[in-house]
Amino acid sequence: MKKDFINEDWSEVVVIVLERNATEKQIENVIKHLEDYGFSVHKSTGVEQIVLGAIGVQPNFDSRKISIIDGVLQVHRITEPFKLASRTFQKENSVLKIKNVELGGVAIPVIAGPCSVESEEQMMTIAEIVKNAGAKILRGGAFKPRTSPYSFQGLGEEGLKLLRKAGDEYELAVVTEVMESGQIEIVEKYSDIIQIGARNMQNFSLLRELGKTQKPIMLKRGMAATVEDWLMSAEYILASGNKHVFLCERGIRTFETYTRNTFDVSAIPVVHKRSHLPVAADPSHATGLRDKVVPMARAAVAAGADAIMVEVHHDPEKALSDGPQALLPKQFEDMMKQLKAIAEVIGRTM
Amino acid sequence: MKKDFINEDWSEVVVIVLERNATEKQIENVIKHLEDYGFSVHKSTGVEQIVLGAIGVQPNFDSRKISIIDGVLQVHRITEPFKLASRTFQKENSVLKIKNVELGGVAIPVIAGPCSVESEEQMMTIAEIVKNAGAKILRGGAFKPRTSPYSFQGLGEEGLKLLRKAGDEYELAVVTEVMESGQIEIVEKYSDIIQIGARNMQNFSLLRELGKTQKPIMLKRGMAATVEDWLMSAEYILASGNKHVFLCERGIRTFETYTRNTFDVSAIPVVHKRSHLPVAADPSHATGLRDKVVPMARAAVAAGADAIMVEVHHDPEKALSDGPQALLPKQFEDMMKQLKAIAEVIGRTM
Amino acid sequence: MKKDFINEDWSEVVVIVLERNATEKQIENVIKHLEDYGFSVHKSTGVEQIVLGAIGVQPNFDSRKISIIDGVLQVHRITEPFKLASRTFQKENSVLKIKNVELGGVAIPVIAGPCSVESEEQMMTIAEIVKNAGAKILRGGAFKPRTSPYSFQGLGEEGLKLLRKAGDEYELAVVTEVMESGQIEIVEKYSDIIQIGARNMQNFSLLRELGKTQKPIMLKRGMAATVEDWLMSAEYILASGNKHVFLCERGIRTFETYTRNTFDVSAIPVVHKRSHLPVAADPSHATGLRDKVVPMARAAVAAGADAIMVEVHHDPEKALSDGPQALLPKQFEDMMKQLKAIAEVIGRTM
Amino acid sequence: MKKDFINEDWSEVVVIVLERNATEKQIENVIKHLEDYGFSVHKSTGVEQIVLGAIGVQPNFDSRKISIIDGVLQVHRITEPFKLASRTFQKENSVLKIKNVELGGVAIPVIAGPCSVESEEQMMTIAEIVKNAGAKILRGGAFKPRTSPYSFQGLGEEGLKLLRKAGDEYELAVVTEVMESGQIEIVEKYSDIIQIGARNMQNFSLLRELGKTQKPIMLKRGMAATVEDWLMSAEYILASGNKHVFLCERGIRTFETYTRNTFDVSAIPVVHKRSHLPVAADPSHATGLRDKVVPMARAAVAAGADAIMVEVHHDPEKALSDGPQALLPKQFEDMMKQLKAIAEVIGRTM
Repeated sequence: MKKDFINEDWSEVVVIVLERNATEKQIENVIKHLEDYGFSVHKSTGVEQIVLGAIGVQPNFDSRKISIIDGVLQVHRITEPFKLASRTFQKENSVLKIKNVELGGVAIPVIAGPCSVESEEQMMTIAEIVKNAGAKILRGGAFKPRTSPYSFQGLGEEGLKLLRKAGDEYELAVVTEVMESGQIEIVEKYSDIIQIGARNMQNFSLLRELGKTQKPIMLKRGMAATVEDWLMSAEYILASGNKHVFLCERGIRTFETYTRNTFDVSAIPVVHKRSHLPVAADPSHATGLRDKVVPMARAAVAAGADAIMVEVHHDPEKALSDGPQALLPKQFEDMMKQLKAIAEVIGRTM
Repeated sequence: MKKDFINEDWSEVVVIVLERNATEKQIENVIKHLEDYGFSVHKSTGVEQIVLGAIGVQPNFDSRKISIIDGVLQVHRITEPFKLASRTFQKENSVLKIKNVELGGVAIPVIAGPCSVESEEQMMTIAEIVKNAGAKILRGGAFKPRTSPYSFQGLGEEGLKLLRKAGDEYELAVVTEVMESGQIEIVEKYSDIIQIGARNMQNFSLLRELGKTQKPIMLKRGMAATVEDWLMSAEYILASGNKHVFLCERGIRTFETYTRNTFDVSAIPVVHKRSHLPVAADPSHATGLRDKVVPMARAAVAAGADAIMVEVHHDPEKALSDGPQALLPKQFEDMMKQLKAIAEVIGRTM
Repeated sequence: MKKDFINEDWSEVVVIVLERNATEKQIENVIKHLEDYGFSVHKSTGVEQIVLGAIGVQPNFDSRKISIIDGVLQVHRITEPFKLASRTFQKENSVLKIKNVELGGVAIPVIAGPCSVESEEQMMTIAEIVKNAGAKILRGGAFKPRTSPYSFQGLGEEGLKLLRKAGDEYELAVVTEVMESGQIEIVEKYSDIIQIGARNMQNFSLLRELGKTQKPIMLKRGMAATVEDWLMSAEYILASGNKHVFLCERGIRTFETYTRNTFDVSAIPVVHKRSHLPVAADPSHATGLRDKVVPMARAAVAAGADAIMVEVHHDPEKALSDGPQALLPKQFEDMMKQLKAIAEVIGRTM
Repeated sequence: MKKDFINEDWSEVVVIVLERNATEKQIENVIKHLEDYGFSVHKSTGVEQIVLGAIGVQPNFDSRKISIIDGVLQVHRITEPFKLASRTFQKENSVLKIKNVELGGVAIPVIAGPCSVESEEQMMTIAEIVKNAGAKILRGGAFKPRTSPYSFQGLGEEGLKLLRKAGDEYELAVVTEVMESGQIEIVEKYSDIIQIGARNMQNFSLLRELGKTQKPIMLKRGMAATVEDWLMSAEYILASGNKHVFLCERGIRTFETYTRNTFDVSAIPVVHKRSHLPVAADPSHATGLRDKVVPMARAAVAAGADAIMVEVHHDPEKALSDGPQALLPKQFEDMMKQLKAIAEVIGRTM
């Protein structure tokens, strides 16, 4: 049995609106329940409505428990459900140091590389290209979460070795994805940053285990995750002991089908308002189409992203996965120049 | 009875996948139906599947008519449902001339002003502010579509006069919204551009009527509209005779509730790919929160928007509608400088 | 200039959570603003957080006005934004009498007929079929809101006459859609119920005008409308003077593309909880596919719908619109027997 | 390195629409690429458009590879991306035997029990209640995926033992959730069915591992999963060797916030059309509110669900998780009578 985390110094605020015709007895019953749950209750009587405010030490109270009591019209949970990830808890931006790269400060590092690690030649070629254009971190998947069981699933440890070798050769930090707890040990050995993919954003077992390492974690947003859900998943890692977390926006699922996902650029300033954690942006997965990647990378920098991650391939027609969204080397170089110029407009560097 | 538009030179392509165990008789029946509908049919036989391709002069054929015939597994309509709005139909960008403003060319005009016209003093004050900071077009609502019947509904014709007066005084073109056909005549008299709001994007009666004027139309995207729906609504106006149309992205409805809507920045390059019509962006309505407007305006320019529309108010706390999303004068000035610098990065001007 | 509605006896409740480190001066400033807006304010001080409750006569207060004041972390508007449509305002179910049909009571009337009125023979044939199978109301579109300007747009007044004639001949009440204010007079003359389509649910001009008639109104849910938006649109009609309103669920837009829309069956009990207005269900438009209509009609009755609307056509392959979602006569008859049996399980009749 | 699955007898159909002004050279280049990828190509020339049809042995071909070649306007992938889960592959319904319960046949078993296993007394009390009312399978969570790290995380193996004991005592099959590969062995030991939760629907590592067992798997739909994604996840399990799979609809995430999720009742007939796998429905998680559970359970049976899963608790105010959505014993009994009567209307039993 796993122990729950406890946050004793965390108060909870709930507001209860009573039905217009609630009886005195019903009102007393609601108040009694709230007090039994450990809240102190304040009652406000308006022209037509009675409202109860309840404040108490009840972390993550399920407010629906009150909503089913007779006489209750609505219950509003006021407190943010996360704490360690909250801007209220820490005013200053978190800045992560990853080898010689700073993420969350004034500079905006670019993470680039192929979707999947395919071969030594491929990794060396691409690492050189992205390094020369100014990237600071090399990406490459060794364990691939593929929607179809019939698609290429990645090279595994062999891929991790090639990624590390290319990173070392070109003095780039490296990032790769982990898909299950059993892979953490080996990925930790080879990678500077561990990525949690969108489909695992609420794999709570994995989040807990990653909380026990001290590696920087890049937590991608789930396709159906609100910003609040996303910060709750970050809270899992933080509460488990690892403070080195940054987020990565990669598109959400909406009714629009022309793009693979809808890139929620506004999530960038929203995260900055609500949390001290840095937030990166991945326009490659968000759009799924090469010719949309560059304008969306520019938009993300303009909106305040703390890092940009894009896929680059020197021969995308032959790529084993996601070739159509990979930038060509020349496109990547041109993009880097534009991003640098836009960063400067808002007082940042690359 | 209204006459339907006809596009005789518009071919339609439909692909039909048959069930694996479809009988010869069923296949013949499907082909017969297609030929009766006026298609010429090509049959391709694969290892396990038979596929029919149908090409013919059948504008806006309802492909579900085929999907319900026995033996049919899937039907795919291949042709784009719009024509006049399509990049296939017109390769070059449409450029609109609105008084001395060009929209859709290299320059990116900024449209600014209050949500609602409230008084002469208000309009004159705000027009001066936005003119001095570099705006080219003045906005202001006289007929307001409000979710609640109890909210301020606009000044009507009085508001139109004040908008016109402020525009003339500060040499700004003006734009305002029309909510129903009965208002077109009067709005046409006072305004240089007529806005169709998000909630009226599929008010087809209104689209048809606006197609009969020659005023430039700004067509906002509906909250649940795909890019294809949106271009279909533009097609209504174009097919009715008015070629002066531009689009305006203003956010779509998604599961995310922290922002009022999700600003679909990627719709900008998507529209540019599929259509020759210019596309503006309105970050004020998309986000609903002042502190998100500036980063999202920057993102829209970086993504290639052809115009930016923002709300500005000199005293937003007293605004009769949407004050909380209006920029303060100083914020607007600072934003204009940033937008100009970003425009230059991508070879455009302001 | 249109006058706003006023509801003097309607109190508004807003809850404000202050930032942890809000200064005394900031708190005073927030309270002063609230009092200036006419609220009486209650302050609750918890272990770590200060919460203000504000109650006052401020119908449809824009709570974002408070959220932008320094020191404010969150603002929650507690009061429901609608009143006349609310279950709080009227405890008992509204029951509409439409000719000899009751809608909102124990019996569940079925509304059936073709998508579009096409000819006298068609209307007479279908009216006889649906009457014999137990339908109480005949549907048929004369003014058609079509996504494409190139699709059939309806017969106009000629269609209204045919609908009326078929209704009279078979003693069925009739319903048809109105697309703009200019059509109200003529539709009112021929139809027993006026339908507002999904795309016009927030055509506020039209809602206001329909509020001036005394005809029963069927208000379809917009594709991107929350239940709250939908009830706000009902409120427009009610506040304008017409109490004879019922709602119709017809599917919302989601990421799922296999069905045309996602039929939100749970909206039926949700509306019953929040409003006294009856709620019908239209599985034909929700799913767009004939073979999904019958199971979804059964689901809607099982969930408590007050009326069911389906499309029926005796020769759907030749239908001028939406043939693929129309039920065949035999399917309709079988469905009617199933719906009747399910209605009885939950104490209702057909 | 994991080996990919191969399906040699699975042909792939892709349709390519060329741009109107595509040159002969471009067209040849597209055809060459398709042939290099192993397709045989058919060219159809229409009035204005050229369309290529490509059929070949290319399972899970990434069609975007073609969409980026010059001269290509659109690419449509025609083949369904799943095979073993498809109705095309197996015409007859799959029927699972779980102890003495049949799932997928005429009878509709009900799965009931608490959200979390809390104590022996709790499990025995609830097992007796649900058994007496006619349930066939007992549910109870031992490993709980909770959004917040501060919420109750389940009793672990102790919970599994209590679930098994209660199942044995009352002759009920049992189902419980597994959150990670490391838990499979122990859950397999105690449970008759293994549940994959919505948040793990695309945890591909877990799906693969469960494919190696022979236990029946209940695969819940992810909140952002299309029916196609969902069937692809089932395909993972089937392709890994476990044929005993059924699905469970539990609501998708939409813009509507009044209910926790939007229960997609229409997914039930859609799955039946596209797949031979049985599909259950869980109205408790879909709605999150007790008073919506019963109408939605009725709707699911009326729509054709093969099993119903609901949460039941004898003392929901004290439940450690999700008490507000648990049915009271009396509500459950009444619901069972209604479900039985509705099942009979459509020729099924309970």
